[in-house]
Amino acid sequence: MRRVKAVISYDGTNFAGYQYQPKMRTVQSEIDKGLRKLHKDQTIFSVASGRTDAGVHALGQVIHFDTPLDLSLERWKMALNVYFPKDVRAESVEFVDDDFHARYSATGKTYMFKWTKSEVQSPFERNYSVHLGKWNPAIGRMREAAKYFMGTHDFTSFCSSKTATASKVRTIRMLTIEEQGEELIMTVEGDGFLYNMVRTIAGMLLAVGIGWNEPEDIQAILEAKDRKRAGKTAPAHGLYLVNVTYDG
Amino acid sequence: MRRVKAVISYDGTNFAGYQYQPKMRTVQSEIDKGLRKLHKDQTIFSVASGRTDAGVHALGQVIHFDTPLDLSLERWKMALNVYFPKDVRAESVEFVDDDFHARYSATGKTYMFKWTKSEVQSPFERNYSVHLGKWNPAIGRMREAAKYFMGTHDFTSFCSSKTATASKVRTIRMLTIEEQGEELIMTVEGDGFLYNMVRTIAGMLLAVGIGWNEPEDIQAILEAKDRKRAGKTAPAHGLYLVNVTYDG
Repeated sequence: MRRVKAVISYDGTNFAGYQYQPKMRTVQSEIDKGLRKLHKDQTIFSVASGRTDAGVHALGQVIHFDTPLDLSLERWKMALNVYFPKDVRAESVEFVDDDFHARYSATGKTYMFKWTKSEVQSPFERNYSVHLGKWNPAIGRMREAAKYFMGTHDFTSFCSSKTATASKVRTIRMLTIEEQGEELIMTVEGDGFLYNMVRTIAGMLLAVGIGWNEPEDIQAILEAKDRKRAGKTAPAHGLYLVNVTYDG
Repeated sequence: MRRVKAVISYDGTNFAGYQYQPKMRTVQSEIDKGLRKLHKDQTIFSVASGRTDAGVHALGQVIHFDTPLDLSLERWKMALNVYFPKDVRAESVEFVDDDFHARYSATGKTYMFKWTKSEVQSPFERNYSVHLGKWNPAIGRMREAAKYFMGTHDFTSFCSSKTATASKVRTIRMLTIEEQGEELIMTVEGDGFLYNMVRTIAGMLLAVGIGWNEPEDIQAILEAKDRKRAGKTAPAHGLYLVNVTYDG
């Protein structure tokens, strides 16, 4: 058996999220279906770095799986792209040691959140960016607010109240807001993210940008450890998992 | 009654083409449904510059309709974008004279056809550009071939054999091939286009680019007036109606 690591991208629009759910089209079920076909009906389970919600996209999700097949890396990439649906692509493939684990070996993740400021949102962007409509957030305020998230905090206020994880302490190593034409892009990098954490941070930064909150409110909201204190969770379709890092 | 002209864009992915068909989701039926709601159940029929096929996109399709409503242009644009689905947008609106007709007054149209040359096609591009895969067309040859289409010709060889139009003579005023990063873009402007004409020209240019035909073959194929002489029709999802021009 050989362990294969693959970096995959997907358009989350037509998926009920990453994780397997009975009778739903999920990224995981499409990947495992493709792997099963490629292995002539042998069941192969893939493991991802983590789940993404319905509508969330990925530019660089990472999966691993063990296979008895003996193919070159070039063949692996071609084969995965034959057996995966068109809205999931294998971007790169490598062989890894047996102790590599897509989830447990991950040391960091980068996410991107996109908003569009155009008066009318292009029909081509409707599933890929959140339209700001009448809102015109002040980027300086958003950047000011972003500073409060930097470093190690208990993110209880900034994750879904349904989050089951024992520790809600996470470290954010980078959080930037950039304008690119009509797009406003938040990029965040950290050691890991709780359920809905990136979308809650995006919603909070927007709330500050449009004046519903002050940048310095974030410190008190973090300290309150109460999800009700933070603002709305930003919509799923603006979110992209950009990449997952592994040490060594 | 007032005649309104609207420039609309749409993502053709989830439509069975422009024109009304019973029980199908078409651009026309969604527009007319929106107009009916906006007019409190009064039936309003819109007229477009022409049809587009299933999967074909529009950046600047033009429609007109007559309305008893008295709204400002700004209100019209907002109202249309409330009542149209998210994959159809009103980009601009103006009032026009009663003798303006979206179809009969049109004096020219511009279409764009997009191919992608990346090794793996981004999942986000799968419905918006045709993946070239192993093909690496020679742009110089495509540009050479493009010259033969310029000017006034009988395009019988370059339209669907089902085309019912009496005259198949059309004038092409511009036909360019440009590379933009990993994209190869054909832009064509003319006084009008027959059914499948742009996609058949795109297919022919690609055939020349990859060496299946020589640029000078096009002259003989035009003269043959036989659809079977030209190559494959390029796929619908690479095609965009860019704009429609009107004199005056």
